[in-house]
Amino acid sequence: MSSLDLATIRAAHERIRPFIKRTPVLTSEALDTACGAKLSFKCENLQAAGAFKSRGACNAVFSLTDAEAANGVVTHSSGNHAAALARAAQLRGITAHIVMPAGAPQSKVQNVGSFGGWITFCEPNLTAREAACAQVAARTGATIVHPFDDLRVAAGQGTAVIELLEDAPDLDFILCPVGGGGLLCGTAVAAKALQPGIRVIGVEPALADDVAQSFKAGRRISIPTPATIADGLRTNCTGEKNFPIIQQYVDDIVTVSEEAIVNAMRELWEKLHLVIEPSAAVPYAALLEKKFDFAGKQVGLILTGGNVDLASVPWLKP
Amino acid sequence: MSSLDLATIRAAHERIRPFIKRTPVLTSEALDTACGAKLSFKCENLQAAGAFKSRGACNAVFSLTDAEAANGVVTHSSGNHAAALARAAQLRGITAHIVMPAGAPQSKVQNVGSFGGWITFCEPNLTAREAACAQVAARTGATIVHPFDDLRVAAGQGTAVIELLEDAPDLDFILCPVGGGGLLCGTAVAAKALQPGIRVIGVEPALADDVAQSFKAGRRISIPTPATIADGLRTNCTGEKNFPIIQQYVDDIVTVSEEAIVNAMRELWEKLHLVIEPSAAVPYAALLEKKFDFAGKQVGLILTGGNVDLASVPWLKP
Repeated sequence: MSSLDLATIRAAHERIRPFIKRTPVLTSEALDTACGAKLSFKCENLQAAGAFKSRGACNAVFSLTDAEAANGVVTHSSGNHAAALARAAQLRGITAHIVMPAGAPQSKVQNVGSFGGWITFCEPNLTAREAACAQVAARTGATIVHPFDDLRVAAGQGTAVIELLEDAPDLDFILCPVGGGGLLCGTAVAAKALQPGIRVIGVEPALADDVAQSFKAGRRISIPTPATIADGLRTNCTGEKNFPIIQQYVDDIVTVSEEAIVNAMRELWEKLHLVIEPSAAVPYAALLEKKFDFAGKQVGLILTGGNVDLASVPWLKP
Repeated sequence: MSSLDLATIRAAHERIRPFIKRTPVLTSEALDTACGAKLSFKCENLQAAGAFKSRGACNAVFSLTDAEAANGVVTHSSGNHAAALARAAQLRGITAHIVMPAGAPQSKVQNVGSFGGWITFCEPNLTAREAACAQVAARTGATIVHPFDDLRVAAGQGTAVIELLEDAPDLDFILCPVGGGGLLCGTAVAAKALQPGIRVIGVEPALADDVAQSFKAGRRISIPTPATIADGLRTNCTGEKNFPIIQQYVDDIVTVSEEAIVNAMRELWEKLHLVIEPSAAVPYAALLEKKFDFAGKQVGLILTGGNVDLASVPWLKP
């Protein structure tokens, strides 16, 4: 696939429909009153395997020809993409090789294992991960499914916003977390095609502002691995394929503080009654920090995932 | 209203539809695998005001004649019913008087206040609460809306299971928490009318087993105020109106340990990605404690509410 458009995203939606959930869009009287806006939350924390990543992973896996699929898939990730890819491969009956850094949390290892993923451990740095991934691919013939810089993945992620706009058709804004940019790409392309007047905003932790910097500079800027609490957004640099799409379709990238992320997370647990992970709280943090004049506007927020370790909650000590 | 039947519950459903949410029914591959059953969770933690109580409160308030409504409503409760009644009254534009024990948690007081409820404080015991409630009613002419022993309330609560059975039509079991029995009554009457073969099970904390005792003895038994973590189920005795309905329609009442309630709560937060309150975890605790042979069965569970104080989580110390 060399480009990303609404037709591609719609095709992805048809392809993955049997394997993902139609997640609910929730609203809250209390949060609307608090923000002075009308908020619609797309609950991908309630997606299969607990994150929107199931969409992109299923699209990539079910896009393969039978011959390609026979050799399996491989990725490097310790997070939601790893579990989602293992699940998608299991559904297709093929092998998923997952390269994970030695010392990854036991819960993440178990999560991948629960979907039958084959884990290869490597040194905990990007170079070692990419090298290990390439080695597995060379040895097994498995297709590499990059966590974000893969337009099949981005097309899958873009399916969430099609559902969001079906359930909440009059949005003025869409707020979307940005890590590597796969979700943001798919979201922006689909949303702008469906509703040209909509404003698509990427929201990034200030501690992981590579995409904000890149967007401003007009070229991809790489940063050291960020220390943000939003563990799903600790990417060094947005994808090569994603960046031109972000430049073309996204209206703005804003950044939020760590404090706002934790406050947003707690407020959504309390008022929406949803367990969301820190990365998923980032769009609501942009509302708390009033990054735009949202007064009276209809705002869609993508709650990207719900995989947290409940043995430690940011505002409580274990 | 002197009886409770499916027609009454359907009429309640039509009456309250504009004022409540159609909550989602969620499933989880991980939990199904863990339990060896097919589970369907009716997510009333995602209901307006965070609990199924909005259904019964709206039915009671919108059942009043204009003349009755003009004098407002009154109840004694410090929990979800109080907030739900205040919200329902606000929607109808009438006054809700809420009798609460002095020393009730600030969060609950604020919750009622946020819906414009008028709070009267009293001594923290049942006699004082009932006396204060009767006094307010006598002084203002407000209609008393009992938290559970009121068939308009029970009819409203029964609407949740109509939706559950629309979304999950082949259930073998329905597991429902029991406090005063309003939800259980409405659930049992509606479920048995819609699907006579279904088994409706009430689940109660072992520390608050008044309904289990009463069901066994064939007469209403009162117990001292129970100390269970499931704060929504700390009732002394099931309702006078509810008990004969429970006897007629409910298949069994089982009890669960405090440990199972906390484990169930944590597992549902982690795997379903939902914030539920301890009372809502009670049905899943019955699965964890294998109170029936659920193997291969389709089981519906009502997740009754999501109002918790996040400053303390049962498995973490603040």
